[in-house]
This record gives sequence, C-alpha cells and structure tokens, in this order.
Amino acid sequence: MKNTFGNNVSVTLFGESHGTAIGAIIDGLPAGIKVNEAFIAHQLDLRRPFGKISTPRQEEDKFNLVSGVFYGKTTGTPICLIIPNENTKSGDYSKNYGKARPGHADYTAFVKYNGAEDYRGGGHFSGRITAGLVGVGAIAVDLLKNKGICIGTHIKKCAGITDDDFSDYESNINFLSNAQFSVLNEDAKDNMITAIENAAKDGDSVGGILETVVTGVPAGVGEPWFDSLESIISHGLFSIPAIKGVEFGAGFGCSDMNGSQMNDHFQLDDGVITTKTNNNGGINGGISNGMPLVFRCAVKPTPSISKEQNTVDFINGEEVKLSVTGRHDPCIVHRARVVVDSVVAIALCDLLSQKFGTDWLV
Amino acid sequence: MKNTFGNNVSVTLFGESHGTAIGAIIDGLPAGIKVNEAFIAHQLDLRRPFGKISTPRQEEDKFNLVSGVFYGKTTGTPICLIIPNENTKSGDYSKNYGKARPGHADYTAFVKYNGAEDYRGGGHFSGRITAGLVGVGAIAVDLLKNKGICIGTHIKKCAGITDDDFSDYESNINFLSNAQFSVLNEDAKDNMITAIENAAKDGDSVGGILETVVTGVPAGVGEPWFDSLESIISHGLFSIPAIKGVEFGAGFGCSDMNGSQMNDHFQLDDGVITTKTNNNGGINGGISNGMPLVFRCAVKPTPSISKEQNTVDFINGEEVKLSVTGRHDPCIVHRARVVVDSVVAIALCDLLSQKFGTDWLV
Amino acid sequence: MKNTFGNNVSVTLFGESHGTAIGAIIDGLPAGIKVNEAFIAHQLDLRRPFGKISTPRQEEDKFNLVSGVFYGKTTGTPICLIIPNENTKSGDYSKNYGKARPGHADYTAFVKYNGAEDYRGGGHFSGRITAGLVGVGAIAVDLLKNKGICIGTHIKKCAGITDDDFSDYESNINFLSNAQFSVLNEDAKDNMITAIENAAKDGDSVGGILETVVTGVPAGVGEPWFDSLESIISHGLFSIPAIKGVEFGAGFGCSDMNGSQMNDHFQLDDGVITTKTNNNGGINGGISNGMPLVFRCAVKPTPSISKEQNTVDFINGEEVKLSVTGRHDPCIVHRARVVVDSVVAIALCDLLSQKFGTDWLV
Amino acid sequence: MKNTFGNNVSVTLFGESHGTAIGAIIDGLPAGIKVNEAFIAHQLDLRRPFGKISTPRQEEDKFNLVSGVFYGKTTGTPICLIIPNENTKSGDYSKNYGKARPGHADYTAFVKYNGAEDYRGGGHFSGRITAGLVGVGAIAVDLLKNKGICIGTHIKKCAGITDDDFSDYESNINFLSNAQFSVLNEDAKDNMITAIENAAKDGDSVGGILETVVTGVPAGVGEPWFDSLESIISHGLFSIPAIKGVEFGAGFGCSDMNGSQMNDHFQLDDGVITTKTNNNGGINGGISNGMPLVFRCAVKPTPSISKEQNTVDFINGEEVKLSVTGRHDPCIVHRARVVVDSVVAIALCDLLSQKFGTDWLV
Repeated sequence: MKNTFGNNVSVTLFGESHGTAIGAIIDGLPAGIKVNEAFIAHQLDLRRPFGKISTPRQEEDKFNLVSGVFYGKTTGTPICLIIPNENTKSGDYSKNYGKARPGHADYTAFVKYNGAEDYRGGGHFSGRITAGLVGVGAIAVDLLKNKGICIGTHIKKCAGITDDDFSDYESNINFLSNAQFSVLNEDAKDNMITAIENAAKDGDSVGGILETVVTGVPAGVGEPWFDSLESIISHGLFSIPAIKGVEFGAGFGCSDMNGSQMNDHFQLDDGVITTKTNNNGGINGGISNGMPLVFRCAVKPTPSISKEQNTVDFINGEEVKLSVTGRHDPCIVHRARVVVDSVVAIALCDLLSQKFGTDWLV
Repeated sequence: MKNTFGNNVSVTLFGESHGTAIGAIIDGLPAGIKVNEAFIAHQLDLRRPFGKISTPRQEEDKFNLVSGVFYGKTTGTPICLIIPNENTKSGDYSKNYGKARPGHADYTAFVKYNGAEDYRGGGHFSGRITAGLVGVGAIAVDLLKNKGICIGTHIKKCAGITDDDFSDYESNINFLSNAQFSVLNEDAKDNMITAIENAAKDGDSVGGILETVVTGVPAGVGEPWFDSLESIISHGLFSIPAIKGVEFGAGFGCSDMNGSQMNDHFQLDDGVITTKTNNNGGINGGISNGMPLVFRCAVKPTPSISKEQNTVDFINGEEVKLSVTGRHDPCIVHRARVVVDSVVAIALCDLLSQKFGTDWLV
Repeated sequence: MKNTFGNNVSVTLFGESHGTAIGAIIDGLPAGIKVNEAFIAHQLDLRRPFGKISTPRQEEDKFNLVSGVFYGKTTGTPICLIIPNENTKSGDYSKNYGKARPGHADYTAFVKYNGAEDYRGGGHFSGRITAGLVGVGAIAVDLLKNKGICIGTHIKKCAGITDDDFSDYESNINFLSNAQFSVLNEDAKDNMITAIENAAKDGDSVGGILETVVTGVPAGVGEPWFDSLESIISHGLFSIPAIKGVEFGAGFGCSDMNGSQMNDHFQLDDGVITTKTNNNGGINGGISNGMPLVFRCAVKPTPSISKEQNTVDFINGEEVKLSVTGRHDPCIVHRARVVVDSVVAIALCDLLSQKFGTDWLV
Repeated sequence: MKNTFGNNVSVTLFGESHGTAIGAIIDGLPAGIKVNEAFIAHQLDLRRPFGKISTPRQEEDKFNLVSGVFYGKTTGTPICLIIPNENTKSGDYSKNYGKARPGHADYTAFVKYNGAEDYRGGGHFSGRITAGLVGVGAIAVDLLKNKGICIGTHIKKCAGITDDDFSDYESNINFLSNAQFSVLNEDAKDNMITAIENAAKDGDSVGGILETVVTGVPAGVGEPWFDSLESIISHGLFSIPAIKGVEFGAGFGCSDMNGSQMNDHFQLDDGVITTKTNNNGGINGGISNGMPLVFRCAVKPTPSISKEQNTVDFINGEEVKLSVTGRHDPCIVHRARVVVDSVVAIALCDLLSQKFGTDWLV
C-alpha cells in the first residue's frame, strides 16, 4: 500500500520537501478522543533541529488540522494534518540534479520514477516528511498514555558514546518525554553533543542506536504469523529514513546466548504473571506477554556530508566528485527519536483496536 | 491481515503442529510458471531435522499441491499446498498444559485465545508451520532464479563460532543451495556442529545469526514510505519464530561509523552504476539500487531445553519447576535458513509484480 | 487481494472443479466459538443439487476441518476447510477446449491466464468453488445467529414467477433456513419448479432474483466512504458467479420515487428508534440504522445450455457452433441462495469485529 | 480500510462539509503522467450545482495540488488535492442537531460516533466530499483516455423520464464529456429539468438512474473471486452517497431471460473476438472480455426536502416534525454522474496496474 501503514488505524503520508506543504492523514481512530494541539506542537518541537548540531533550516512547523477534529475531539473520520513548507531554498539542489549523493535516494528515485521525481531537497524522501508522521502520531501517543501505555526512547549510543541503561521506566519515560536531546546520563549527553559538533567541523556525520521501551501494553496483542508485534513494529520503523537495523529484547545478542540464558522465566508478582528477565522484549510468539516492549533501532550517520565524495552523474553518465553543500544535520539520531515513538504508537493503536475494537481507544 | 503476507502476491499459512495437516496458500502468481515439485521437495528437505543436532521427530513432509497447478504449471489461481501431519505424539504435551514454557508462546497464546488454543506441540506457533511456507516459497525461489534473482543464506555465526564472509556471491549461493548445514567454511561448520551437540548434552540450546544475499534484484524496487524494501522484508522475517533482530548492510555496525565511512560511493562499472561498498545493503531510500541485497537475522537459541527452569502454571496460578521433555532441536539456526529464503522470495515476487505487473514473473 | 475477502475476518478460496480438492480458509475469527459440523453439513446440503432441476453431478461434499478447530471450538487461528473432489468426468470438457461457451469465463480465462488455466469444468470459475465458501460461511452464519443476527434469503422471482413478500421476518427466516428450495409461497414454488423443468426440457435455463433480509444488526456498523455496508456486501455478492445486479431497500425502484416517498421517517417504538418504512434497506450513509438489512441480487440464467449456440474457437481462431453437453443446472438461483447468506455473514463478521473487536464475536 | 479504496492505486478522502477544507489523496500512480489542471477544473465544474435545479451553495472549488506533482507531471508519490471550504453557513445546521433528517446519516453518525461527529452540513457524509474524489479522479479519467479507455455516463432515467439508449459510444461519450446535464436526447433533458423544477416547487425531490459505458478496456482484467470487476466497481460505486443499486449488462432484467437470450454469442469481427450482444456488460467470470463495460446505478431522490416529515430527536428522545431548510438540491442525479466516472476510473487504474504493472499507466 505504498505510503499507507496500518489496517484498522492507518496513516498516510504525503508531500515533498520543497513543495507547498507536507502532511499526513490518520484514519480509523474512533470518535471522541481529545486532540491536544499543544502536545502535537510539543512533539513537533522534539523533531525539530536542535542547537548547533542540526540543520540551520529552522521552520516553525505550524500545523493545521484540516479535518476530523471538532470541538477539540476526534470525529471518527480521517484527520488530515498539514504543515506548510516555508524557508525552502530550492536553488541549492537543482544545480546538482543527476549527481547521486552517496547514501541518498537520488539514484534509486531516478530509476523508480524515470526522472519525474521532485528532487528538491530529497523530495518525498526527505526526513522532513516525518513531521507529518510525528504530528498525527502525537494523537496516538497521547491517547495511549491515557490508556496507561507509555513510550520512551533514548539515544543508547551515538558517535561511539553509550548512554546508561533504563533504570526506572516510569521516571525515565517521563524525563525523556521533555528532553530535546534524549539521553539519560548528562555526561554521556554532553560527550555525544561534542562528538557531533566535531564531526560537523570535519564535514562529516555520525550515527547511533535508539532504544525504546513501551510500558503498559496488555498481554495478548499481536499475531503468530505475519502480523506479529515484531513484524508490525519493524515494518513501521524501517520506513523511517536512515534506520538500518531493528532488534527486540536481547536482539542480536541472543546469538551468543544459550537457551538457559535467553529464556525469560515466568514468575508470579503479586499474583500477576511477569518474567524475571526480558530478553524477549515483551514478546513471545509474536504476541505481547505483558512485560514492557523493548527494542532498538540502528540509525545510520546522515549521508549528507560536505566532505568530497566520489559518485556518478546519472544524467550525464560520468563519474564526478561531489561535496554536499546546503543545510544539513551532522546527526539525526536525536531527531529520529520522536519519529520512532510516533510509528510505534500508531502501530499499537492499530493492533489494539483490532483486538478490542476501535471504540476501546477512546 | 493476521496469517496473510503480501499484496499482489500473498501467502497464507494454516495448521497446527498436531492437527490433521498443515499448509499454505500462495495467491497472485501469474499463470504459466513451471512448478518444480522436485525443487519443492529439496527445499523442504533443507528445512527438515539434520542428523544428531535436530529433533528426532522425522517426517517426510510429503506435500500435495491441491490447487492452482495444471500440467506442471501455475494456473494463476491460488496454489494450496498441504502437508499431512504424521508421527505426532500429543501425549507428550497435554499433561503439561498450563505450565508456560519460558521463551515459548504458551502463555501469550492462552491470554490471546482465552484457553481455546490448540496447545499440542506449540499448535499454530510451531516451527512446523514453516514447512508450508517453505513449500510454496520454493515456487517463488525457483521463479526468481529463472529471472536471474538468486538468494543465498549462510550461518554467519552459531554458538559463538563465526563463518567466513561471502567471497563470490554466485558460487557461494550455488554451494549453499545444496548445503544441508549452510556454512561456507568447513572448519567453522564442524565446530558449530560440535558446539550444538555439546549444548544438547547439557540439556541446553544455542542461537546464531543468518546472513542472506540476494543478487540480481533490479534497481527501482520498493517504496519510500512504509513499503520500503526493508519494511517488507523485515515484516516477513520477523514472522519466523525465534528471529529477534534484522539488519541491512552495515546494520547496527553503522552506529559506530561516520557518514564518510558509511556512504557507498557510486561508480561506473562497464557503464553500469554500482557502489564501491555496500553498507546500505543494496537499498537507498527504501528502494533497491541494483547492488546485492544483504541482510542478517538474529535467531535466538531454541527455547525448548531439558534443563530445569522456573515458571508459572497459568491454569493453577502457581509457580512451578519445568523441564521441557519431548523431541526438540538444540539449535534451529540451520533449519531457519530456508525459511528466510522463502519469505524473502515471496516478498520480492510481491514487490516486483507491483512494479512490473504480475505477468512479468512468468 | 484477488481470492481473499475481508480485513479483520477474511476468507480465501482455492481449488478447481476437477482438481484434487476445493476449499476455503477463514481467518480472524476469535478463539472459543463453537463449530457446529452438523450445521456446516446442513448448509452444504442447501447448496447441493436439488431433485430433477439440478445437475446430475451429485457429490456428498464431505468436508474436513484441517486446522483452526480444537475440541469443537475455534482456536483463533485460520480454519481451513477442504472438500475432496469426486465424481469428476474431465473427459467431458477437454475435447471442447477452445470453444468459448457463451456467458462463461472460458475466453476471459484464456486471455487472463495465457492458456495455462485449468479449463476442466470451469476450473477455478466453477460454481463448485462456492462449496468452500458455504462451508466456512456456515461458521459465520451460526455465530451471528447466536448473537441475535439472523439471515434469510428467498427466491423473490424465478422464471417470471414471483414469490410473496416477506411477512414476518422471524418465522420467514426460520422457515427458509430449512427449505431446500427457498420460496415462501408453496404455489409459487411449484410453479417455479415446473418452469425450470420446462426450460430444461427445451435445453435452456432460467434466472431469477434473490431477496435477503438480515435482522438484528446493531445500528452503527459500516463506514461513510468506501467501506459502506453496501460497498462491502456488494463486493462480496458480485463475486458469486452469475450475479449481475445488487440493490438495497427500494433499490432501482427509488428512481421512480420522490424524496417524500423514499425517505424513511424515524419513529419511537417502545423507546427504540426505528423507521416507519425501510426503503433504505436498513442503511443510511453506509451505516446500519438498526432496521433489518434488505437487499436483492439478480441471478442470471445458467449459461450452460444444450441449445446450439454460435461462438468462437479461440485456439483455432474460427467461428463454430456449440451445444454445451455434460451435467448442468437449468437454474442455479436456489443453489446460490446459501452462498449469498454465507458471503453476507462473513462480511458482517468482518465489520462487526472491526467496530467491537474480534472478541465480541465469541 | 474505511476511507481508502484500492490497492495498487488507491484514493483516500478527508474533510467535512463545514470544516476548513476537504480533499483527497491518490497514491500509486506512476511517475511521469501529465496532470491536466484544466481538465480537473472541468470535471469539478461538472459536479457543481447546475442552474435553478441545484443548491444555491455555489463554490468555485478552487483546488490546490499540494504534493505529488512536479513540472506538471506526477512524481509517483501521493498526490494530495485540497479544496478549501468557503461560503459555509453552519448556523443553518447546529440548531437542528438531534432531529434526524429522514434518509440522511444524522442518526447513524450519532450512533457510530457517539455524538462526537461534525454534524454541520452532513459533515464527512456530505456530498461535498465527492469533490475531492472528482478532483483526483480526473487524473485517472484523463490518463485512461490517453490509453484509449473512455468513460461516459448519461442520465438514463430521471423523475420517470427516460433518455435514449447509447447509439454510438464514441460520439456519445464525447458529447457527454462536455454536457453539464448529461442526457443524450434534448427533449428528455428538457422534460427532466422541468420535472426537477416542479419537484423543487413542491418542496420535494426526485431520483434517477445513471448508465455508464467504458470502452477500450482490454480483455483479461479482473479476478474470478472477490476482486471481480463487478465487485471492485460496485464497491466504489456504493460509496457514493444516494446510490442504492448497481447492475451490469442486462442486470436485473436477466431474471426474466432464458439462458439462450442472455448468453452473448462470441463472434469474429475482423479477426477480433467480440460478442454479438452485451448482456453481460463486458464481463465474464469477473474478468473483462474486451467488450464495452456497461452498468447502471440507481440514485435515490435527495433526502433533503422542505416538506414536513415525521422524525425523532435522538438527543431529547422524542418524536418531532421536521422541515429541512437550508440550501439543497432537488435532484443530484446529474451531479453524481462525474463522481461515478471518477470512481470507475480509479478502480480501473488499480486493476490495470495490478495486471500490467503501475508503469503501464504512464
């Protein structure tokens, strides 16, 4: 379904980096859910460039809720959120059309769209398109919170520097929900920012790992085959530009473990069934087991770097040198965080409403 | 869509481990594709238990193509493949119902299905269900081969032992397609088997990492959002029991790289655009760039171990000790290999037919 | 999605008229629903040939529930129902391959499937495929009945003879549920049967109109756009071979009415909102209003007739004369009845579970 | 999928009658298709109110192509078309909230959306939402025309007055494409308009039948089960407000025919296989046979009438009298015409691209 994700609750993205506007539609949410515009703005702020370590393209991300909201509540019909594009400098891009930026989709877009693609600023591939996703995702994040389902993501690793592990999920999630640069350990945070700034000075960029926890997901959500929780969540996550790996619980680490180490023993915790460890990331057989969902995403270093690179001009069919100028992020790990939360929230709304009915979400 | 995967070409799985039969339907394949029953049998053989390091439950996996095949070719209508269940010992399981096997779906199935699940041998969660997937997947693997698209998977790592990297894709894939235990380096293979046997003696199990390459995928396949190549492939892979991580190209390794290391420089190779490195695993912006697809899956150690474990009896609501008896694999990494190939083949048939039309697959 | 219908609850059909077996999968039904095999057999009986007015191909339609049922209840996983083909006389068909039977899919199948179609007995286009639909549909019909939602279909018109209108829905539905030839008025029934027999003697066939009522559907089911109740139900109905028209409530008759005649006035009936008339067939704006759903299907006369017809041999590219021999029905209106009920039941299960959650169906 | 229709090519509608804007997204169209904005405006004009026989709410339907179009061509990414709402008089509606207008969705919306619906002017149920559908549908109509596939719809019947049959498809379609009131026979047209005016004077409304022909559809499009051409087209058509019946070819008339009358004999026409009659409406077994598609829709009389009606106030739980004031159409048959064309064009683009690949549409 191309630009649409989800069944009972679905999201559709549209727009190009330098077009009139970008936006998103979320459909399938039941009527009567409070739409908190301040929280939407807050989430969009978390996605916006941060200080010196981000692109100088600063947009306010003023959004319009064009449909589906009435007297501050969802009407049960599609909610279309639109964010006008401003501050676009298309001239930066057109002169380089044909020179495939390494790590970018210039060449694959050219092949797929036969040269009719809107190439300005990455067009429909731009990270800017995630603003729409974050905008409507905020409604999903917010309604889940009201159902006791909380999502938090921190930068587990960036530029080789590692953050602390989650310690107390509730306070960690609370802290992260307002953190512009979502790192638990202050020193780690400072070191990461310094490392990003240094990469920027070198005309280079850095990547990292995001780690997410979701608390409060009831046991029994997900499907054994094809619509497993891991399948649905990873489907959404791998749509986010720059994500190249997704793992749940112990993830790739499980390859070095024995079954006796990996298996999460069940126990009774005040009468509630929990597991002693959570190497399976809260998921057994594709279905939530009531423990927190835990997963990590690998975010590649921003491909836009000013260092000179070898590449091909696919229009003229010749090898060329390229230095990507323009306004770019030396790191997008911190900005991708809220996109991850948004995708996961939408995926969970979809699966929860499949099981319990869409009205359950109200 | 629960037990169905794919849009233009889709697969549906059905069956329980100890029911009458298991099977799969593949729909959307165009008419006129040769159905090679010997190759289906060959692929099913690769999935079957291997020597001492696998479960003693040995079934011949005799399959019936109940529909959609006429005079050895696809008719363009749904192909239903059925494999009768034989050699089932249900008595092994029923007596333990309620005692949640750690790492298994017993408990989540109980919650999801309110106690009406077929619990015998893992029921619909059993790895045995993958036989149907491999059966119909063989048709997809075979037709792609005829279109020049070849898939090969080796055990990159198992029980802490590492295989060689791919050296020559064509010969590696050729070698692996007939290898019962798909490791490139003979010594690594022997060491892995020994390690698995040792784990088995300890009543324990081991996990590993599968690495897959797909050559010959034309550039331009996949979508920027939500139906990215990574999204679709990971969606399928995470349905395979025991897979807890998926990464493309450099994957999680990208978090330690700079953009200048990660970016794959484009070059002209006899007039064809290729990349010098392949850290993006053949995918830019969710779309194939003509380079081989490369990805890895983390396979967790088999949760069925005979070592005593602590768990909960969810029927009686009490903590119990459990030693999983019965016939089990101390490792399923080698058996999961052909399941990975099958899922990827089906996913590619779906995406290719979306772009080029289903008739292109003939 | 080709051979699959439905989202939360979906059905997939497979099989060819003269293959090994035909069947269907229903997926998405929650666990714990009683599966009444006697009722499945009963519904299959209603679909089977009836007396002299049907094809002499008499099969017992012995069905196997291959998966998804455990101790007489659904397990929440796909239910695969298989009916072996017996009593096939393929020789009847192969000699005429290429001679397009007028009104049949021989020619369109040839074009679509490039000559690789299974042409024996209509292959995948055969009305026989509806047996699988009826088989799994019986589970849906039965569970809806237990939720107070009852479906009844009578032959409103056949061979120019008209049945009585529904008088008392409850007793009418009850009567029809056991009527092999579902006509309310005994005289009309006798006249229809005589007319069908006469058509058969002439080597000809007749068509008719089926009228269906569904009582007990709660208000609020369906969607304003694209997944309107009418859209979903008609989507299913138009898949049934021979159906060429579908209308709801006053249907085509509304074109001769004024708004003041067509509009159904709302009223309070012991505190419950009902409508005085039901020209909208229980649906306003695509959503059920709590009144009985009422719709009609036009069923064309069976295209297989022994009267000589002009046609084309698409293999040899020449005009030929054709008399369709073999075993055929001079009328299928009465047999299509239970197929209509099955499709509608599945469609309603899908929409109900979307709104209320799949667990609601238990 | 609620407000989305289609698989490979899909359309999503959003907006409410009195909200900020309404609009539609069409996704899945390949890159490089010319987007003719003048033709979009032309199609929107055909949907707009016509002379005295339509609502005085006159809006210019100025549309913005917010995304997916670059240098006048599709980019292959979602095309979002937005039409701002102007000239809204919400005060007309709010005072009557609770008084269910007979024939309208007020009551069903209230039940479905628990009172959170945007009730102003019918909200998301308003016929105005079809403007978005017509806007993006124009792109589909236009591209099909360039592939030799032409769609034409006339008012077969209105207020009891019958139009001529199609005589010459090519010239008829050509004529209709520019006819504001799409009737072939001038006298019939005048009589219909007079009848509509008379109904309006009486505070009443009239309905009618639209008849559509589609020429140039290649044989082989559609599926035997569930995605039959009839299924997909009717699914789309029944989403259009006011449509209560759909029939193909002889439609309901087939119930009075014998097989020997209904069957369309195949013949060779200059080497091309055609049928002598077209009682099957160009479709055999759910698949196009190369003949023109022919179908008819029943359009109910506009439910908004000023004549006093009995109804229920569902807020106060009492029976009330209601006279629907405000700006209304005494007939919408002529306005629905271009909506029918748009839906069918989108459905055909979807099915054609499924068979031939999306690139075929360029």
